[in-house]
Amino acid sequence: MTNNNKYYPHLSVDCVLIGCEDDQLKILLVERTDVVSNEKYNDKKLPGRLIYMEEDIDEAAISVLKEYTGIDNSYLKQFKCFGSPKRTSDPRDVRWLENAVNLQIGRLVTVAYMSIVKIGARSNKIDSKFKASWVPLTKLPQLAFDHNLIIEEAIGEIRKLIENDPIVLSDLLPTKFTALQLRRLFEQIYNKEIDVRNFHKKIKSMKYIVELDEKEENVSHRAARYYKFDKKKI
Amino acid sequence: MTNNNKYYPHLSVDCVLIGCEDDQLKILLVERTDVVSNEKYNDKKLPGRLIYMEEDIDEAAISVLKEYTGIDNSYLKQFKCFGSPKRTSDPRDVRWLENAVNLQIGRLVTVAYMSIVKIGARSNKIDSKFKASWVPLTKLPQLAFDHNLIIEEAIGEIRKLIENDPIVLSDLLPTKFTALQLRRLFEQIYNKEIDVRNFHKKIKSMKYIVELDEKEENVSHRAARYYKFDKKKI
Repeated sequence: MTNNNKYYPHLSVDCVLIGCEDDQLKILLVERTDVVSNEKYNDKKLPGRLIYMEEDIDEAAISVLKEYTGIDNSYLKQFKCFGSPKRTSDPRDVRWLENAVNLQIGRLVTVAYMSIVKIGARSNKIDSKFKASWVPLTKLPQLAFDHNLIIEEAIGEIRKLIENDPIVLSDLLPTKFTALQLRRLFEQIYNKEIDVRNFHKKIKSMKYIVELDEKEENVSHRAARYYKFDKKKI
Repeated sequence: MTNNNKYYPHLSVDCVLIGCEDDQLKILLVERTDVVSNEKYNDKKLPGRLIYMEEDIDEAAISVLKEYTGIDNSYLKQFKCFGSPKRTSDPRDVRWLENAVNLQIGRLVTVAYMSIVKIGARSNKIDSKFKASWVPLTKLPQLAFDHNLIIEEAIGEIRKLIENDPIVLSDLLPTKFTALQLRRLFEQIYNKEIDVRNFHKKIKSMKYIVELDEKEENVSHRAARYYKFDKKKI
């Protein structure tokens, strides 16, 4: 039997962790370091790696996150396999990966996982020994491989999740939140500006969002009312 | 650089085509032939194959269906990547695949696609030169690899699709149908018996299902009323 490369794509897993901090949707990224023309450069990528021969892909995703960030998250949901041959069209990506794994890489298919997390919660603390950080969705740089596309599709998944079960939003907001915070969150998820007046009507139609008898304190602008989720009504 | 097998799973695509015929949910399967201890045997599997080195996985799924059944279906939806190392625990599966592709197979990850189709529609005609057939879901034999599991998860996807958009059901029913036909369909999709009386109440609550002024003709039992989908109401 031959061992030619005709049928040999390499397989990786990549994890999109999405959280909200300071009213900004953020993505967990790790640093990639390489040398091009004798100059060292850093850029960013999703936490991910090639799977090992005996490794279940779901387990690989969970362990990758732990290895690269110290985060122990077992709620990763597989959402899509990215398998365009163009994924390895940038020679910089291929060279970096070939150096990292000491293998020739012809083609790389990745299985993408996602999870919505509370940034700062104990189980989501990034171990400081890793060069991982939360980067605002609106300020993502050009990432390795097709990782920008993978993140875009993960946000599309969040839209679907919200339509099926709005409780997902509660992980992306503080326990009590203002209408502005909720609107900013929707604006980032749907990537468009939302009209203030229409949005107040929309909030009233969301039966699972309850107005509280409580307003912001110690603010320079007019104190805004707080809202909370009524999980029983979802 | 080494070319060892540590990071080398093989990658395939498999297609689950689901239709309904004679009130039975059916899955499109192809025949697999092999020889064990000098005896030839046949069994069945989903249409699928290893992807080629330069092939996009979505395009591979579409072409695989055409190659193995003659069906030209571009609405295949990727729904899950199956990547347990146990997928190749049956030596019969490994040997068959190794003979088919003339390669050593250590591990096989598959990306599964699905589509709900109208059996008998022109675009879904199986070319008779292929050994493909529609097999009732309730009569599936033990299939190759984990193909029984893949089908089970595809049916789970149909449940989700129906909850989001019941129009999916209209592809699985004739233009006009009886309450019994609809109930039998639900029983197969949800894999449980459904109480007749509760089901009649359920139909009334489905605003997108309209009672017709028409009943079955030339039947030996009491003629049942016909219903149809009102696509505008979905």
